[in-house]
Amino acid sequence: MKKLIVLLFIAICFNLTAQESNSDTFIKYVNPFVGTKNMGHTYPGATVPFGMVQLSPETDTVQFEHNGKYNPDVYKYCSGYQYEDKTIVGFSHTHFSGTGHSDLGDFLVMPTTGQLKLNPGTSDKPESGYRSRFSHDNELAEPAYYKVFLDDYNIQAEHTATNRVGFHQYTFPESDDSHIILDLISGIYNYEEKNVWTFVRVENDTLVTGFRQTNGWARTKTVYFAMTFSKPFYQYGHKKYDENIYKGFWRKFDETKNFPEMAGKKIRAYFDFKTVKGEKVKIKFALSSVSTDGALKNLKAEIPHWDFEKVKAESQDFWNKELSKIEVETLTQNDKETFYTALYHTFLGPITYMDIDGAYKGLDQNIHYAKDFTNYTIFSLWDTYRALHPLFNIIQPKRNADMVKSMLAHYNQSVHKMLPVWSHYANENWCMIGYHSVPVIADALVKGNLSDDFDYNVLLEACVNTATYEPYDGLDYYMQLGYVPEDKNSSSVSKTLEYAYDDWCIAQIAKVSKNQNVYDEYIKRSQSFINVYHEKTGFMQPKMSDGTWKQDFNTLSTHGQGFIEGNAWNYSLYVPHQPEQMIELMGGKERFVQHLDSLFTMYIDDEHFAGTEDITRDGIIGNYVHGNEPGHHIPYLYNWTNQPWKTQERIRMIMETMYSNTVDGLCGNDDAGQMSAWYVFSALGFYPVCPGSDQYSIGSPLVKSAKINLDNGKQLIIEVENQNADNVYVEKVIINGREIKANHILHSDIVNGGRIIFHMTSIPTK
Amino acid sequence: MKKLIVLLFIAICFNLTAQESNSDTFIKYVNPFVGTKNMGHTYPGATVPFGMVQLSPETDTVQFEHNGKYNPDVYKYCSGYQYEDKTIVGFSHTHFSGTGHSDLGDFLVMPTTGQLKLNPGTSDKPESGYRSRFSHDNELAEPAYYKVFLDDYNIQAEHTATNRVGFHQYTFPESDDSHIILDLISGIYNYEEKNVWTFVRVENDTLVTGFRQTNGWARTKTVYFAMTFSKPFYQYGHKKYDENIYKGFWRKFDETKNFPEMAGKKIRAYFDFKTVKGEKVKIKFALSSVSTDGALKNLKAEIPHWDFEKVKAESQDFWNKELSKIEVETLTQNDKETFYTALYHTFLGPITYMDIDGAYKGLDQNIHYAKDFTNYTIFSLWDTYRALHPLFNIIQPKRNADMVKSMLAHYNQSVHKMLPVWSHYANENWCMIGYHSVPVIADALVKGNLSDDFDYNVLLEACVNTATYEPYDGLDYYMQLGYVPEDKNSSSVSKTLEYAYDDWCIAQIAKVSKNQNVYDEYIKRSQSFINVYHEKTGFMQPKMSDGTWKQDFNTLSTHGQGFIEGNAWNYSLYVPHQPEQMIELMGGKERFVQHLDSLFTMYIDDEHFAGTEDITRDGIIGNYVHGNEPGHHIPYLYNWTNQPWKTQERIRMIMETMYSNTVDGLCGNDDAGQMSAWYVFSALGFYPVCPGSDQYSIGSPLVKSAKINLDNGKQLIIEVENQNADNVYVEKVIINGREIKANHILHSDIVNGGRIIFHMTSIPTK
Repeated sequence: MKKLIVLLFIAICFNLTAQESNSDTFIKYVNPFVGTKNMGHTYPGATVPFGMVQLSPETDTVQFEHNGKYNPDVYKYCSGYQYEDKTIVGFSHTHFSGTGHSDLGDFLVMPTTGQLKLNPGTSDKPESGYRSRFSHDNELAEPAYYKVFLDDYNIQAEHTATNRVGFHQYTFPESDDSHIILDLISGIYNYEEKNVWTFVRVENDTLVTGFRQTNGWARTKTVYFAMTFSKPFYQYGHKKYDENIYKGFWRKFDETKNFPEMAGKKIRAYFDFKTVKGEKVKIKFALSSVSTDGALKNLKAEIPHWDFEKVKAESQDFWNKELSKIEVETLTQNDKETFYTALYHTFLGPITYMDIDGAYKGLDQNIHYAKDFTNYTIFSLWDTYRALHPLFNIIQPKRNADMVKSMLAHYNQSVHKMLPVWSHYANENWCMIGYHSVPVIADALVKGNLSDDFDYNVLLEACVNTATYEPYDGLDYYMQLGYVPEDKNSSSVSKTLEYAYDDWCIAQIAKVSKNQNVYDEYIKRSQSFINVYHEKTGFMQPKMSDGTWKQDFNTLSTHGQGFIEGNAWNYSLYVPHQPEQMIELMGGKERFVQHLDSLFTMYIDDEHFAGTEDITRDGIIGNYVHGNEPGHHIPYLYNWTNQPWKTQERIRMIMETMYSNTVDGLCGNDDAGQMSAWYVFSALGFYPVCPGSDQYSIGSPLVKSAKINLDNGKQLIIEVENQNADNVYVEKVIINGREIKANHILHSDIVNGGRIIFHMTSIPTK
Repeated sequence: MKKLIVLLFIAICFNLTAQESNSDTFIKYVNPFVGTKNMGHTYPGATVPFGMVQLSPETDTVQFEHNGKYNPDVYKYCSGYQYEDKTIVGFSHTHFSGTGHSDLGDFLVMPTTGQLKLNPGTSDKPESGYRSRFSHDNELAEPAYYKVFLDDYNIQAEHTATNRVGFHQYTFPESDDSHIILDLISGIYNYEEKNVWTFVRVENDTLVTGFRQTNGWARTKTVYFAMTFSKPFYQYGHKKYDENIYKGFWRKFDETKNFPEMAGKKIRAYFDFKTVKGEKVKIKFALSSVSTDGALKNLKAEIPHWDFEKVKAESQDFWNKELSKIEVETLTQNDKETFYTALYHTFLGPITYMDIDGAYKGLDQNIHYAKDFTNYTIFSLWDTYRALHPLFNIIQPKRNADMVKSMLAHYNQSVHKMLPVWSHYANENWCMIGYHSVPVIADALVKGNLSDDFDYNVLLEACVNTATYEPYDGLDYYMQLGYVPEDKNSSSVSKTLEYAYDDWCIAQIAKVSKNQNVYDEYIKRSQSFINVYHEKTGFMQPKMSDGTWKQDFNTLSTHGQGFIEGNAWNYSLYVPHQPEQMIELMGGKERFVQHLDSLFTMYIDDEHFAGTEDITRDGIIGNYVHGNEPGHHIPYLYNWTNQPWKTQERIRMIMETMYSNTVDGLCGNDDAGQMSAWYVFSALGFYPVCPGSDQYSIGSPLVKSAKINLDNGKQLIIEVENQNADNVYVEKVIINGREIKANHILHSDIVNGGRIIFHMTSIPTK
């Protein structure tokens, strides 16, 4: 009887999802609020896939320093939004998705009524400033659409966006004192001197242009804008909060009111309207990295009308089209929502970084033109080389090739002659470690996505130059000694291990380029992981420049132990290019399984937990840290032992415990889509443990079925037989009618299309 | 006997000057040090006519504030150089000539040897910093060439320049510690927050690029550079003096040494060499308002080699060519030097403001392209509309037409839709009063220099829009009341009088454009001077908005009395467009002569002298202020009375007492060439009292003869019969054989070529 009910339930679900998969409304499964609580660092606002504009609410503007000290709260607001907040400060146009460091938050717009307030006020006293209380009951977020009711002003705020234009629609109450505030001080990761310069021109009573130049995580960044109103403002003004600004002969004017040029480091402007009840004031707000001319061009090209609903519909269609690249059926609606939200998150970056005519500002601060490709920025490569770019190699191959072109453009403009490490807005911010442009290039190359318009020798040269830039992060020592010595450079083990893997990727590129010398050299370098393996302890450990091991080594700690955002238990497993050799080194398969088993079951105390960074307590299993990247491949490593069923078990467990369709549905930073890409892959049943190879390690699919609609016109169908919550083990895998023996599938198995059938069971296949 | 000697002397002089005028070495009569002592505010450095680069020494870098208060010394260093100083801080690339306010001083370069010092040090302790002692004995300045020996380092510094490139040549002693310092903090009119951002890239071991962005008199200004060395530096570095700059992950690097990207608000960089004795290290330093790409283009186009002497020779040829537009013979060598130095000063601005390809940054901060014209900047129009632009209408008609095009471009980019008031580097700095682009346009138009590629209606519209921009300097009241009321806007009388004149100019443009309505309206507005004339006192006086006169009026004082840089005695005479009517108003010719006589003979005490601004004690005659502009036409006003001989007397006196070929040869700020242009005109025997009319008022020529080589191929020959120091009175003027009766000549008398003969006498023609 119980069985019958289950079957009935499954049948209903199947029917439901079958129907839905025929429709094209994938966006209804996306919940942009996922990850907005705690450490997901996602934002709920309006954007299109890979869009330059991310128009999203800020629920607080936290200063970098508080009472003269670093304010830890600033970290909470990497995306500007925290779900538990009760007020909205306004809506700005640039946001990172899921990062663990931040910047941006440019051009905060806020509609208000009544007495004009130009300060944001505080969350505990919202009435002290222009911010407004709001309730989640009156808030809605969909892909490319966000809506919220601003309680303090009786204003309905709605947003949609195109690639380069944010579209605001504010429904006002009757008021003679309706305002649109444009706050050029407000920003994310704001500190006292972050604004370098801002400049605003009121071109006429419906058009405002200008720029904001900041010194933040992007050291030298300028974003230009063009802002147009559906209705003329009848007066406007601004207030400068600069103390030391040179006033010159502008003293002649009352600059504060109806004076059309505003300039300074700290400016807040306002535009006044008289509104009747229910009147909609709309704003189109376009961005450019090049000039206000460029922003205006973008504005006119992308939204040449005032039809908000039309833009919303078109942008949501765009999302549906992109999300339809993978059609899944799942056991539950929750899983489907979690899946499509994850897929949504993977399409939030890298973002388009060029004007409609291809112009963009480069690292040399000159204007460049992207010829025959889309230039992208926001490369959080330490995160995204792992699964995000590999995912793109399946469902966004053209974009991924353009991302490689964007990285090459970065390289060409780089005065260091390095490929990007962590770059955004034509700035290398040097965050994290490694040179992980290399695996992105290698993976795209090996998977056949870098077509003939790439010169492989140029690719190889860029990688080699990057890998030999001595001043970078211990590379000089690494090249001399075969490892980064801890006494010369921190996080030395992590760096050594990641360089070794990156070097293996360079060898793969050299292989394709038929450059034997480079291949030999980098294959040799890729063995460097051996140099930091301590045979006696069985861990990768920090070594000093004199060849001795660092004393007082703590395998649970992260900081000062040779690692970054991971400890020895996790990071010792980082040899993605040669797991067999690593396992051998660590004492063979049996001992290796013990290491993994211990990792997943041991207890890590609060002190050591704190060192793992960027995750919630829910983001760990034992000492395994899913909420941060260094371990993302680890659960798949059982595949290289005799107990691959433990991979299957863990993968399924992680998907079910670390991801959900709720606001706290991410156990750590989404990290520009990497956390979500891990989920998308794992839910489909496989994962790229070693980007740069053509293999995907088999896990345990969560979906009931999936269709991957490939750009080459082919379709890969994934069917999961006997799928249910208990049947987490893979009994066999049949590809196009042939059962495979290995624990991996090949890239060709995917891109040639066909059918992969997973047979599931509740009994581990030992 | 005595007479014989005098004749002999004259004969020798004549022979001398005759010989010289046949050669083309006009530059040898130019002494760039003229005006570098006291308030001339000229600079001695290397530049070409109307060149974008002014490569000149700074003898001190004075902070805007000293001990928290405005430092009056900052004013002394408008051009960066004061002749009495004993040290040189370095050589920067942008300088105003003769202004009374300042900015610029971008990119200070200094060669040193020995221990590296990155602070400039102080003049009383030069060894505390990188500055060097020097002696005028070892200093030489010629057009396009400057040389100085730096005593502290045994370095011979030499400079020349092309339009957009400064060329440095430093002859070093033997040293393992030779340095070139690039100071991006140093600047003129520097204050704590002036640097907004600076950015430097070491592209390779001979090429450095970057920019300096400042908030100064030009509120939002960025200058880009490309700097190339003749010899590779073997190491380099920089120091940041920023206290609050965000350090991000650049902390990873030792940015201070051999790190190729530098960015911050306060940076000083150095480049190290080992030099043998007598080794020349050369630097080409190109500017651009657009980008480092633009600067590099300029560099390559203008100086594609390393031949310093060749560039020097070509740039000096350029000067000779420009100076040859007027060939004069004078009574003395001193007069000739004074004349050609004045002519030199008139060609120092406005400066070229565009790259070799026509690109320049506009007021909207966008990049614009000058099509078929040279775009200029630095429009000190309150000064230069009087005589400088009228002089250009004779000897630089093509450039002057391009300057009008540049002003129109400014207008088109202006968010205020105003023609320039005082503009530089695509910034309106709003200095001084009036809208004196209008007389520049009117004068060029009336004198036939605005050819068919100008749309006169567009010109007129630009002038009218400018003259009706209500928020500007009391224009709203002026349009309502017919005068600017002192209780609403300061310097109200000066403004009323200058608006009235400018409006008359608009009427002249309307006349040419055949727009009767505008003509009528502006002819009416041009009568507004009547509204501030107080019949009882005989002075122009400040009126209140209620129509009453301001109480407690002081005719000698400037500040708070309705005037600016002039008092009632001088400013009451400011009706250049209708001197007859003004004289009538002031009680007729006799009473008017009394006013002028009193003006030139009365005593002004120190308190009131201080109010006249920008001049030395030598710059006044009685209460007549030649060292500042409002009076420049006054000595010519006797021509409208029955005593024109007093004009002749005064003009000759002013030329002989207020100008010379010495370092203190300017009695006040040269004001971007206006003081010098007054001299050039007056030395030739006539002056444009009312630009916008085709008349030049006759004074008393100083030259013995002159040839004006006109662009139309014609030549005007001026001959002065009976010229000597005593014969200051004009007996008669014969133009092409016909004696003229009026006290003026016409523009056609000049540009049609021919011969003007002044007959001089020692007896006033009463």
